[in-house]
Amino acid sequence: MTSARGAFVDRLTAVVTRHGPLCVGIDPHPGLLARWGHEDDAAGVERFGREAVAALAGHVAVIKPQVALFEVHGSGGVRALERVLADARDAGLLTIADAKRGDIGSTMTAYARAWLADTSPLAADAVTLSPYLGVGSLTPALDLAAQTGRGVFVLARTSNPEAPAVQSAQSWTPLSDPTTPGMREVAQGVVDACAAANRARGTGVAGVVVGATAGTTGQAHGLDLTRLGAAVLVPGLGAQGATPDDLARAFGDGTGPVVPSSSREILSAGPDPEALRDACRALNGALGDLGLPAGPIGA
Amino acid sequence: MTSARGAFVDRLTAVVTRHGPLCVGIDPHPGLLARWGHEDDAAGVERFGREAVAALAGHVAVIKPQVALFEVHGSGGVRALERVLADARDAGLLTIADAKRGDIGSTMTAYARAWLADTSPLAADAVTLSPYLGVGSLTPALDLAAQTGRGVFVLARTSNPEAPAVQSAQSWTPLSDPTTPGMREVAQGVVDACAAANRARGTGVAGVVVGATAGTTGQAHGLDLTRLGAAVLVPGLGAQGATPDDLARAFGDGTGPVVPSSSREILSAGPDPEALRDACRALNGALGDLGLPAGPIGA
Repeated sequence: MTSARGAFVDRLTAVVTRHGPLCVGIDPHPGLLARWGHEDDAAGVERFGREAVAALAGHVAVIKPQVALFEVHGSGGVRALERVLADARDAGLLTIADAKRGDIGSTMTAYARAWLADTSPLAADAVTLSPYLGVGSLTPALDLAAQTGRGVFVLARTSNPEAPAVQSAQSWTPLSDPTTPGMREVAQGVVDACAAANRARGTGVAGVVVGATAGTTGQAHGLDLTRLGAAVLVPGLGAQGATPDDLARAFGDGTGPVVPSSSREILSAGPDPEALRDACRALNGALGDLGLPAGPIGA
Repeated sequence: MTSARGAFVDRLTAVVTRHGPLCVGIDPHPGLLARWGHEDDAAGVERFGREAVAALAGHVAVIKPQVALFEVHGSGGVRALERVLADARDAGLLTIADAKRGDIGSTMTAYARAWLADTSPLAADAVTLSPYLGVGSLTPALDLAAQTGRGVFVLARTSNPEAPAVQSAQSWTPLSDPTTPGMREVAQGVVDACAAANRARGTGVAGVVVGATAGTTGQAHGLDLTRLGAAVLVPGLGAQGATPDDLARAFGDGTGPVVPSSSREILSAGPDPEALRDACRALNGALGDLGLPAGPIGA
């Protein structure tokens, strides 16, 4: 069952093909708010987010508001996020709510409804999820996303140095899963579980989040993404240290669509809208030259 | 550095000693809202939560609002949660915000400020965190909790059947960590990292979440909690299948304080306040007879 608005991965492929793959993170950190002339409060993050949306609409494919930086201002900050998301919807910008939610059962259903239901004031086109409770526990969100033409991005491998304690731990691949015989890292297990969920639904509803570099060594992510059948969100372009060349090395193998996200490197070019758009054009140009896969997906 | 209000684990031990260990989950699921005569909207969850707080204040030690069931109503639901938390503060009820948040760096700092800063409208006495990005990534929350006399509960082992794919994966214990030589499960690694964080801070700021039963087998959690030096939050008493006897088998080994949480079993006794309190008294009585450790903590 797919919504009238079409499957998420097809909508994503369409806007990435048109505007380039760059996803702009809407991260109202205190330093950026000061640079843009806004207070570090609910009204300030609302003005920041809405000005960014107004400047970027029609010029980039996707924005990714960082939910924590709205939630820190309490319900007023969440109200500000609702208004930013509404502006983005009206402007035709695809939105990924970077919320990293995760729970079980009817509680997970509530998170899914908050971020993926047509009637929710917080509805985005996709939401990031955290799989410590197992990818299977996220099923209510995958189901609702498939119904409403939305998507999820499940954390698989992140670049922070503390991550390997969990993400690089190993377990035996269940005999029921033929994809990766033998021992398998947790991060690969997340990718494989998302791949199975996409195959079962016949559409790429379950993307993954993979850092452009892994851990403290700066080596590539080491994951087999070729069977995923959905999009890969790659945070940390720019301020967190990854370059377009790093991306080409890590994701130039035909997996797609790959959506690299940059926050501070773009936003610190603001608040002047033309300077913001110039920064996006430059980065999209550098990314475009790499031949990153934009879709369609080889599932 | 500890706040004037004292360390979280001492405050928790004091209220548990006085009222018994039961933590009442404030979970405004649609079915419960209907039973209490409230709509499934922001106003409904606010009335439900505030009526529960009014009935429970002075009769139980701790409440645990389930954030997802407020967030599903958008910013209006988050505003409702702020009012429920304010009522609980005024009434002297300890609060654990069941938010399962987790991120890295300055973003994690924002989540920490949202739930643990004195000035935040969402401030609770403790918040649950999810460690898929590594327990080390949660440091901003542990630091702020220690400063403000608050605490965190990090997901370690949960009871849902999808959990072992991540939580039972194994990795080599780092040579720098003498606690558990050899291979170690992710869940035990979370416990050991929290134990190290508590030793480093000299106070039990980092508790863990451990299901009363583990996985589909109903067996005990299998974790060594004896060095934790902080509290253990045990969800799922009642509706999710664990009995007080299960708790005694799983946690009767001198680790403490153990805080079992029950939601639907208690709340479905409402909305009559006296019936709610009777249900709490009965469950606290059954728990009290088990001799669960209430503190002080053996670190």
